[in-house]
Amino acid sequence: MLIRLGYDIQFQIPSTVAMVAVLNVHPSRTQDLLEPAELHTEPEMPITHYFDTFGNRCARFVAYPGWLRLKNSTLIQSPDTPDEVNLSASELPVYDLPNDALIYLLNSRYCEVDRLSKVAIELFGHIAPGWGRVQAICDWVHNKVEFNYQHARPTKTALDVYTERIGVCRDYQHLAITFCRALNIPARYATGYLGDIGVPLRLPMDFSAWFEVYLDNRWWTFDARNNQPRLGRVLMANGRDASDVAMTTSFGRADLQYFFVVSELEPVAVTEIKASE
Amino acid sequence: MLIRLGYDIQFQIPSTVAMVAVLNVHPSRTQDLLEPAELHTEPEMPITHYFDTFGNRCARFVAYPGWLRLKNSTLIQSPDTPDEVNLSASELPVYDLPNDALIYLLNSRYCEVDRLSKVAIELFGHIAPGWGRVQAICDWVHNKVEFNYQHARPTKTALDVYTERIGVCRDYQHLAITFCRALNIPARYATGYLGDIGVPLRLPMDFSAWFEVYLDNRWWTFDARNNQPRLGRVLMANGRDASDVAMTTSFGRADLQYFFVVSELEPVAVTEIKASE
Amino acid sequence: MLIRLGYDIQFQIPSTVAMVAVLNVHPSRTQDLLEPAELHTEPEMPITHYFDTFGNRCARFVAYPGWLRLKNSTLIQSPDTPDEVNLSASELPVYDLPNDALIYLLNSRYCEVDRLSKVAIELFGHIAPGWGRVQAICDWVHNKVEFNYQHARPTKTALDVYTERIGVCRDYQHLAITFCRALNIPARYATGYLGDIGVPLRLPMDFSAWFEVYLDNRWWTFDARNNQPRLGRVLMANGRDASDVAMTTSFGRADLQYFFVVSELEPVAVTEIKASE
Amino acid sequence: MLIRLGYDIQFQIPSTVAMVAVLNVHPSRTQDLLEPAELHTEPEMPITHYFDTFGNRCARFVAYPGWLRLKNSTLIQSPDTPDEVNLSASELPVYDLPNDALIYLLNSRYCEVDRLSKVAIELFGHIAPGWGRVQAICDWVHNKVEFNYQHARPTKTALDVYTERIGVCRDYQHLAITFCRALNIPARYATGYLGDIGVPLRLPMDFSAWFEVYLDNRWWTFDARNNQPRLGRVLMANGRDASDVAMTTSFGRADLQYFFVVSELEPVAVTEIKASE
Repeated sequence: MLIRLGYDIQFQIPSTVAMVAVLNVHPSRTQDLLEPAELHTEPEMPITHYFDTFGNRCARFVAYPGWLRLKNSTLIQSPDTPDEVNLSASELPVYDLPNDALIYLLNSRYCEVDRLSKVAIELFGHIAPGWGRVQAICDWVHNKVEFNYQHARPTKTALDVYTERIGVCRDYQHLAITFCRALNIPARYATGYLGDIGVPLRLPMDFSAWFEVYLDNRWWTFDARNNQPRLGRVLMANGRDASDVAMTTSFGRADLQYFFVVSELEPVAVTEIKASE
Repeated sequence: MLIRLGYDIQFQIPSTVAMVAVLNVHPSRTQDLLEPAELHTEPEMPITHYFDTFGNRCARFVAYPGWLRLKNSTLIQSPDTPDEVNLSASELPVYDLPNDALIYLLNSRYCEVDRLSKVAIELFGHIAPGWGRVQAICDWVHNKVEFNYQHARPTKTALDVYTERIGVCRDYQHLAITFCRALNIPARYATGYLGDIGVPLRLPMDFSAWFEVYLDNRWWTFDARNNQPRLGRVLMANGRDASDVAMTTSFGRADLQYFFVVSELEPVAVTEIKASE
Repeated sequence: MLIRLGYDIQFQIPSTVAMVAVLNVHPSRTQDLLEPAELHTEPEMPITHYFDTFGNRCARFVAYPGWLRLKNSTLIQSPDTPDEVNLSASELPVYDLPNDALIYLLNSRYCEVDRLSKVAIELFGHIAPGWGRVQAICDWVHNKVEFNYQHARPTKTALDVYTERIGVCRDYQHLAITFCRALNIPARYATGYLGDIGVPLRLPMDFSAWFEVYLDNRWWTFDARNNQPRLGRVLMANGRDASDVAMTTSFGRADLQYFFVVSELEPVAVTEIKASE
Repeated sequence: MLIRLGYDIQFQIPSTVAMVAVLNVHPSRTQDLLEPAELHTEPEMPITHYFDTFGNRCARFVAYPGWLRLKNSTLIQSPDTPDEVNLSASELPVYDLPNDALIYLLNSRYCEVDRLSKVAIELFGHIAPGWGRVQAICDWVHNKVEFNYQHARPTKTALDVYTERIGVCRDYQHLAITFCRALNIPARYATGYLGDIGVPLRLPMDFSAWFEVYLDNRWWTFDARNNQPRLGRVLMANGRDASDVAMTTSFGRADLQYFFVVSELEPVAVTEIKASE
């Protein structure tokens, strides 16, 4: 399927400020792009790209006082199948994990493994290791946490989510990630596009958060918020938690004025359909 | 000067457990080593080395039930001069920082930049940027925080240090790092050897923590705990905070039984002294 | 001046639940009431009144499944003058405080004196004791904290307000109370009516929080949120913090459906005005 | 049985400071005293006694610079039977609780009912109400929390105990109290003497903390730390949590130099034993 992706994010900039944007499609998906996907700015300005230590492609630039618009629209080829499920994927003992997965067992800003490890073991320590245990974690978080935009806040940690039981998509993933790490299952935070393809409409669109877990010999997608395999997920970035992959980080003030994200099925032209008959 | 470095760390291992040790001298110092510096284990076991994303050389191995001893003794050539001081080193605007310094502006587990940014600006925002401002941060932390081994705890964060005003060397550095980052000064946590060379004796020895700050075009050593240039610092690892560079991380239980660290001036043989006359 | 007070609060009650309402005018103001001021419930139900340890008049009742309405409308005589200001009121040394003021120097749920005492002393320890110091605390809190309904949450403590610098009226008072207590100035939380009399209109009405400080030989009203003497404040309850004087506490689920508060100048009839000429 | 009680607490006072001591035997036990039990100070100084809002008898005095000694030795008649157990004591619905028990359902400084209510319901919500449920709470806390003097700290809350699972007697009780309140069972903190009568010796002596729960129509003693009925408990004070009943509160600096508590069986004189034959 073809998915139209894009965003239009506008700021009022009071004084010159350095910014980093993690708004690119993730390097693992660039081969699926059918149109250019570079960040455009208005006014135009020089942009430097670099890869952070997590492998995300980041854009750096300097925003000058006035209006700043970040926008992009692109088209991506996406599988017609939902997130993969592999019930037989197994947890690896820590000594069989690849070196670069080890960091995803540690504490991070919003994932206090040290404070939730006893709880994780009590809740999930008795469950057979493997895909089913990660799914049990997702089920628990999905069922126990109430979705509510009004209760989002930037400093909310996994422990806060565990005690308050309310939050937004990033909060669900932080708690699930923390439980996984406490059980020695590598887990990392992911952000990207997730449209309402094949599910009832939720409006307005926003970027979405999910998480990835290392089972067998690769990373798999899990989503404690939606908790069902979904169509058309497009990864932008992953990291230890939301601190590492903020869509935009401004090192000084930048006042958000407008925010629009799109991720929807691209209608296929009639002539093409005929041609395929 | 020649410094004799070493450690002897012993655990009781109740059941097979994967471990990571960040006990090597940092790659930036390996050219100064005069003796082999590899981690020895008793019993002997296969060890795999790898570099983490921060550039530290880490050792992985599997510990089996019973006694485990990690030990090493080596000799390193160290400058006869204390930590460098450069009062004219300047803060760079964020847009002039190298890409790989940016991560050291962000939140991490024990450095809640988001929760202390207002405080940092109130305390240090009015001070002229540069070396002097970082020194002012160190002075504040050094003067306001009381050293006390009894008040160490593994979950203590920079905010806890700010409110409790008591802690050990890692706590001092976490608070200073957080203040620096809040002011857009890249700061990272460092661990290593720091003997009592040229200062009154403190016993017993332990590994030490300090931190590094990016000014001009390089990283500089600061130490909010000791707060004076010191002789004979030998870096082992750096990272975002103590979570990234724990001396040993065991992914399961490992009960510490004995802990000994040495870092002292190596007496030079008499014949050598004569030769140099 | 005459002030019309009242509320209309409606709940959906899923199953029988005990409730406590602290919605009465405070005993210290009952002599000013010109109309009955008892809590009415719909449906009617037996209500028991009692005084809590802080001296507030509380109502207890059992709510049965279905709709519950709490309402009242009354008229109170209020001074034509704003909150008293006495610049020469002095702080008492602790040993001269009355016994029953001592509890208002201690920690409470939302006022972590133990965690903010060092900060309080740094910020306000050098200011001359007395009214001016309490006013300096109010000024600081008023200037540093941004008002924002979106950032209210029931678990927010004084330390959270200090780090986040955003909140609603209760948050301002909790921080100011904590600073006062840390300086050995008794401070207690107050709730009640505060209409927009003599100030620009803010809509919609809500109950309001302020705080009281013991100087000289009595309690004085301060308000870190509004930070100016106001007309027509009508006290309902005071306590250690918001935990003690919640408008309604339900020991089980009670879903708020409607909330209306009024506190406004009662227009005086024309004939009365003529009579006074 | 006769129990010899006493304490000898010594401070260095750097400058004149007001102090409150909650070191008296609780009013509910004064009729059991066989010797005077008043606080003695060295040097002698005027002491004022008052009852706080919880009903504890508190002593106020002003300590002057220099050495301060608080001491007492008294003899109390204590039941020969351990803490009462009544397996059939039942929880009351909130609407049947006495007015003055309601405050012990609310949040307090170290008992964040609001943050642990979901956890309490998950852990204990399915257990039949009554004595057995409170005992289940004590069992859980007793089994999950490790006793360790090294991990005490004055700011540790019930949530900290829940996540860290380590602490001293006050920490056990704070967590158990919080769980009880979350289930609408009134629970209050208690401090007093608890010697090693009939149990293996633990040295050195200290004051002890336990808690009280309202079941049927009275308060009962529970102790999540020791978790077994004990002989010779002598209550000194109760309150919402440790903040309310600190042994000594100094409103300024007072440096503890010496601390000795005794609570032991008084040997009965031979002649008396003969007399009773």
